[in-house]
Amino acid sequence: MLSNHLQNGIETAKQVWSRIPNGDDGELEGVSLLNTINGGTVESLDYEVIENYAYREEQAQRGKLYVGYYVVVKWLFALLIGIGTGLAAVFINISVENFAGWKFALTFSIIQKSYMAGFLVYILINLGLVFSSVYIITKFAPAAAGSGIPEIKGYLNGVDIRGILLFRTLIGKIFGSIGSVGGGLALGKEGPLVHIGACIASLLGQGGSTKYHLSSRWLQVFKSDRDRRDLVTCGCAAGVAAAFRAPVGGVLFALEEVTSWWRSQLMWRVFFTSAIVAVVVRTAMGWCKSNKCGHFGSGGFIIWDTSDGQEDYSFEELLPMAVIGVFGGLLGALFNQLTLYMTSWRRNYLHKKGNRVKIIEACTISLITSLISFGLPLLRKCSSCPESDSDSGFECPRAPGMDGNYVNFYCGKENEYNDLATIFFNTQDDAIRNLFSAKTIHEFSAQSLLTFLVMFYALAVVTFGTAVPAGQFVPGIVIGSTYGRLVGMFVVNFYKKLSIEEGTYALLGAASFLGGSMRMTVSLCVIMVEITNNLKLLPLIMLVLLISKAVGDAFNEGLYEVQARLRGIPILESKPKYQMRKITAKEACGNQKVISFPRVVKVADVVSVLQSNVHNGFPVIDHTRSGETIVIGLVLRSHLLVLLQSKVDFQHSPLPCDTRVGSLPIGHNFSEFVKPASSKGISIEDIHLTTDDLEMYIDLAPFLNPSPYVVPEDMSLTKVYNIFRQLGLRHIFVVPRASRVIGLITRKDLLIEDSEDSATELQSTSVRPRCLDKKMLTRDGNAGRPLLSGLLAHDRMLS
Amino acid sequence: MLSNHLQNGIETAKQVWSRIPNGDDGELEGVSLLNTINGGTVESLDYEVIENYAYREEQAQRGKLYVGYYVVVKWLFALLIGIGTGLAAVFINISVENFAGWKFALTFSIIQKSYMAGFLVYILINLGLVFSSVYIITKFAPAAAGSGIPEIKGYLNGVDIRGILLFRTLIGKIFGSIGSVGGGLALGKEGPLVHIGACIASLLGQGGSTKYHLSSRWLQVFKSDRDRRDLVTCGCAAGVAAAFRAPVGGVLFALEEVTSWWRSQLMWRVFFTSAIVAVVVRTAMGWCKSNKCGHFGSGGFIIWDTSDGQEDYSFEELLPMAVIGVFGGLLGALFNQLTLYMTSWRRNYLHKKGNRVKIIEACTISLITSLISFGLPLLRKCSSCPESDSDSGFECPRAPGMDGNYVNFYCGKENEYNDLATIFFNTQDDAIRNLFSAKTIHEFSAQSLLTFLVMFYALAVVTFGTAVPAGQFVPGIVIGSTYGRLVGMFVVNFYKKLSIEEGTYALLGAASFLGGSMRMTVSLCVIMVEITNNLKLLPLIMLVLLISKAVGDAFNEGLYEVQARLRGIPILESKPKYQMRKITAKEACGNQKVISFPRVVKVADVVSVLQSNVHNGFPVIDHTRSGETIVIGLVLRSHLLVLLQSKVDFQHSPLPCDTRVGSLPIGHNFSEFVKPASSKGISIEDIHLTTDDLEMYIDLAPFLNPSPYVVPEDMSLTKVYNIFRQLGLRHIFVVPRASRVIGLITRKDLLIEDSEDSATELQSTSVRPRCLDKKMLTRDGNAGRPLLSGLLAHDRMLS
Repeated sequence: MLSNHLQNGIETAKQVWSRIPNGDDGELEGVSLLNTINGGTVESLDYEVIENYAYREEQAQRGKLYVGYYVVVKWLFALLIGIGTGLAAVFINISVENFAGWKFALTFSIIQKSYMAGFLVYILINLGLVFSSVYIITKFAPAAAGSGIPEIKGYLNGVDIRGILLFRTLIGKIFGSIGSVGGGLALGKEGPLVHIGACIASLLGQGGSTKYHLSSRWLQVFKSDRDRRDLVTCGCAAGVAAAFRAPVGGVLFALEEVTSWWRSQLMWRVFFTSAIVAVVVRTAMGWCKSNKCGHFGSGGFIIWDTSDGQEDYSFEELLPMAVIGVFGGLLGALFNQLTLYMTSWRRNYLHKKGNRVKIIEACTISLITSLISFGLPLLRKCSSCPESDSDSGFECPRAPGMDGNYVNFYCGKENEYNDLATIFFNTQDDAIRNLFSAKTIHEFSAQSLLTFLVMFYALAVVTFGTAVPAGQFVPGIVIGSTYGRLVGMFVVNFYKKLSIEEGTYALLGAASFLGGSMRMTVSLCVIMVEITNNLKLLPLIMLVLLISKAVGDAFNEGLYEVQARLRGIPILESKPKYQMRKITAKEACGNQKVISFPRVVKVADVVSVLQSNVHNGFPVIDHTRSGETIVIGLVLRSHLLVLLQSKVDFQHSPLPCDTRVGSLPIGHNFSEFVKPASSKGISIEDIHLTTDDLEMYIDLAPFLNPSPYVVPEDMSLTKVYNIFRQLGLRHIFVVPRASRVIGLITRKDLLIEDSEDSATELQSTSVRPRCLDKKMLTRDGNAGRPLLSGLLAHDRMLS
Repeated sequence: MLSNHLQNGIETAKQVWSRIPNGDDGELEGVSLLNTINGGTVESLDYEVIENYAYREEQAQRGKLYVGYYVVVKWLFALLIGIGTGLAAVFINISVENFAGWKFALTFSIIQKSYMAGFLVYILINLGLVFSSVYIITKFAPAAAGSGIPEIKGYLNGVDIRGILLFRTLIGKIFGSIGSVGGGLALGKEGPLVHIGACIASLLGQGGSTKYHLSSRWLQVFKSDRDRRDLVTCGCAAGVAAAFRAPVGGVLFALEEVTSWWRSQLMWRVFFTSAIVAVVVRTAMGWCKSNKCGHFGSGGFIIWDTSDGQEDYSFEELLPMAVIGVFGGLLGALFNQLTLYMTSWRRNYLHKKGNRVKIIEACTISLITSLISFGLPLLRKCSSCPESDSDSGFECPRAPGMDGNYVNFYCGKENEYNDLATIFFNTQDDAIRNLFSAKTIHEFSAQSLLTFLVMFYALAVVTFGTAVPAGQFVPGIVIGSTYGRLVGMFVVNFYKKLSIEEGTYALLGAASFLGGSMRMTVSLCVIMVEITNNLKLLPLIMLVLLISKAVGDAFNEGLYEVQARLRGIPILESKPKYQMRKITAKEACGNQKVISFPRVVKVADVVSVLQSNVHNGFPVIDHTRSGETIVIGLVLRSHLLVLLQSKVDFQHSPLPCDTRVGSLPIGHNFSEFVKPASSKGISIEDIHLTTDDLEMYIDLAPFLNPSPYVVPEDMSLTKVYNIFRQLGLRHIFVVPRASRVIGLITRKDLLIEDSEDSATELQSTSVRPRCLDKKMLTRDGNAGRPLLSGLLAHDRMLS
């Protein structure tokens, strides 16, 4: 069959040759067709080559209907990501609030009788929750440990990391977060929520989890890297929007912190997803308002409404605010550095010893955390309640088992409260709410705040990097608001103005620590405004963030960058390194030997090359009729593996197979070439070929990317970097300088007026007419143009 | 002198040749040095080539101190842009509010006696103000007409438009805005404020206005296009931040709507500028609070505080809100279409007849506007005041001469008000405040709102495109809030719930119209939230914007895109056109003949080429020793003109001048090559050369960009477009396919660890050691590497 097919092919090719005077051999129609198709991607990671081919081919087959379907699915997915992430966030919040609420209620009721028994119960509940979390992570979903933001950032930068977007990671992240946050560790659920959003998006993008048979063919329309990355970007924004109920902050976070490429069309969809999350979360909270969700009520979702706080600020206050900014920068940079040491020590020594050590470690940290958060307030003397102030709206001490300020804990008298317990023996959300609270001047003593700051900072550093899902937002806010409130206390004492609220300084402190650690600016600012629901403090938050980021930048990089580097995620930053100016492209390639394939290659050669090196892309080189070599494209390792596995394209003859004039090779379902989203794909070891197979040939022309990006050998690496980074590439060819310039493209050459409707992003396009058109064009007198098509030496090979 | 110099050069070159075995001729050190330097720009418009050269050379001379100075100036400029734009906004607002306030006060006091006299006074004041505005624009600063946003958008996209960033444009814009807004036309001051911010930024960037002798050499550190564009981006954000007192909105507007390239480092500086604006404006308003600024008080700056409005919304309300979104999309798209027709008619017929017609036109529109805004309320019957409601805080009718609701205008009784006059016979700011106001249910009748909507819509369309500075934000908000309030009235009547506020619907209407006309999403959303100071409505605003943008996109493009196209500003959008997939790079060049220069070119040839065509860039081609041609770089028209004008580099011999081994040509101040920011630069007609001059030669090697971006001839235009657009280029060479691949660059080749401190963006770099290093490298056994350096045929030419 195959040999017949090939004979026909040669016959066809000969006919084509006889018809076209300048030797336009048709094959290259196939090639430039591929080129044309591939060119349609805005930021094509090279993997997209065949994917788009397959994809658009399918589309061309199914016609306009398919385009509509694609657009509908695209927006449907944005909707589903929003709903899914919103529901996941609601579920986590309800669970955490109920576990924690139940824990504190029980402990408080027991300590009425015995502090020792209460302490034991408290420790055991925390230990149980943390153990459940670390057990899930170590046994079931190791990729769900940590915040996940560096990994997602890496993924969107073009680095695939094993397992981060699997269904089991999603499940592990959701349940692990409940355990670790509910168990009272010094970590938050915001980073994990971003990861959860990304997982949901990625799973939708591949049409469900294939492993768990939850996939649907109807949803498998997103086959290109770009579409998948867009979905994951939506998921990240949804995660932030859900974690902070900050839809605009979510969009900005995705834009500023996570993505590497950004298109304004995408902003629109990300925005939609965030809006959906906001609606879902709001609806769920409305539903829970009438105590349908147990302990989940005003707490949970981190909205710290400070709108009844300070209205105005005077110029004298700018100095202490700047001091807060400096503190934030210093403590944030220190945090990054300490966590770097901790994590690298953990990775190199502790975590190598296996899962048992990870579990013991997390449980030990849980014990220490429980001990400190219960024990330290015991050592603290209680203060007497302030003069009853009906307009402040706070009860002192608060009713037992309720949220709020003025916790009566181990106090001798009835109208006393323990200020350290108010922040320490509490959920972090409530602690922050208490620190932010206005009209509670002198609630906390400097000594308590300082104790809490030191202990919590140490706990946050130690907890970072354990094998549980962990976000750094809420611990950061806790740390920041503590020293912020400390500064606020001094300001209140020093300026003696009634309009100054300590809570405002706590808020600024929180912003400053996050700025000093994560180094975000606009998105953080918007998130802070959205979670505190107070626009009036915006310029102050901006000021504090500016200072803390500048101070932090003087010491080290942002938390996510540091962590990504530690985890070996090779993120390409937006700015090239300074020393790249002195390196040429050729020097950057070093002494690596370029292994290239001829157009028609022996199977045995392919196998030996793939076995002997680990490159992911290979140039394909052919000869012109005059015997000169010419680079005709790039073929990817993954595509070669698919070809070797399927064997459909093997041929006996070393001549190009010319039946494929402008059409697809027969017998290939091009979805085979689609990169699997969550598995490693096939490797050369998995492929078994017979001796006969090894003696056969493959014509690579239909499977290569015919116009990879090229740079001249002596271009500086800075320029190469910019091309690579800005266009989102995976391979660039370094080639010799050109011998002549065929044309210059300037702005005016690119200003083509719309003749078709450009509003539709994808259009059904018939492939054949174009080939015919071009042939006619070639025949009509443009024969002199030395298109690549005319250069290949097939007359020589066929003769 | 010159000939001696040349002889020395040849001697030096010979010595160099004898020392280097593989013929590394040193010149190319100069070239690749240039390459290295040029490579340092992140997004290099080609104009930067020599600019950076000069720039970094200067910097290398001045050393580390200069780097610090550069960074300080960069941030100082951000500060100054913020302060300048803030003060300009304050000045405009104070002026407008005082003119308008005085106008209305006078009119109201006169109509107590005679409506006719009041009418005349009102008309005359408006006419005077509008006349002053149109007179300034036509006689003094024609580039200051319109909003300026499409032009700034074009500038940031890489298109230079004559005169838009001049000092006189700035002045014209400031005083023109005062006249046109104070004169009561249906336009706003927000677009002009963006333009003003951009002008201030640009003038700072060139160190002041050279024409008016306000420049300072010390501030002239920003010589590259990129630095200037960054400043203008800051200016745009500052303009929005000042216009709306919306600092975050300003950053997002610059990001989403205006810029074409965006770097995260820039976001940081833009953010800072916006924060400064917020502080300046706030300080000025605080200073004005105690009536120091005349009529300027609570009005002026468009903050419409709706925080005492609707707190909550029910699901039934989503339907009418969606209806508002659809209205917004339809009316916005219609607005874009009508203004397109109006403007194109104006440009083609009316404005060709000279300035007199422009003045008459503006004055006529002013007359019509005055007539309608005074006359229509007269025809309207007054309503009686609602039952006195002390908690709403509104007086009815309002005290004469004050701002507020319930205007008593031509009413028979004391406790009556004229609802049409409340919105029509008022400044637009007050009209919006009244439309947004909560707790004023049934203030307006549907008939009045409908009349106002139709009339104001028509006026806004007619006014758009007159020769006065004009923004479309405030008119858009007026139109939108009118139909929004109309829908709100129906909702109130239909659902009969007390919690529903008509003002909320007015706000949503405003958002929907702006979304339907300008098609912004995130930035508009944030701006709306910031100007209304109400975060609770965020999801609703998002919803409305999503719908109105989608509906609008179904009909036409956004307002700025439509206007930019009409004005012939060739903006490259972020997405390539669909039909580009079918075009190759070679086809895109068409039949244009490529004119290239040899390395050493005769002056007469340069002159004749520059005279005979208008290209801005020319390839430079040299020969290898084996006689093959090789492309060595790109030389720009502007640089050739500088060379022709200065004559310093003319030489008698047609041989390359080799004294410049790795160093700068002597006798050139490279700041000559810097593109003038606001003038057209020299043209070939300005240059006068003697016959002797014409017989001389120029060695182009030191002046060319040695590694312009190249694409293979058969790459699809979509891919070319992406390279061009993403990297911000001006020229791309189309070259034949490469004959071989020297190396492949992948991600790992670009992950170079920092050895130097990369925190400093610019570092002093000594040039010479690098050249020596490379030569030593070449001598040390890398002689076999066929670097470009080894290819040029200078032995042949020298022998």
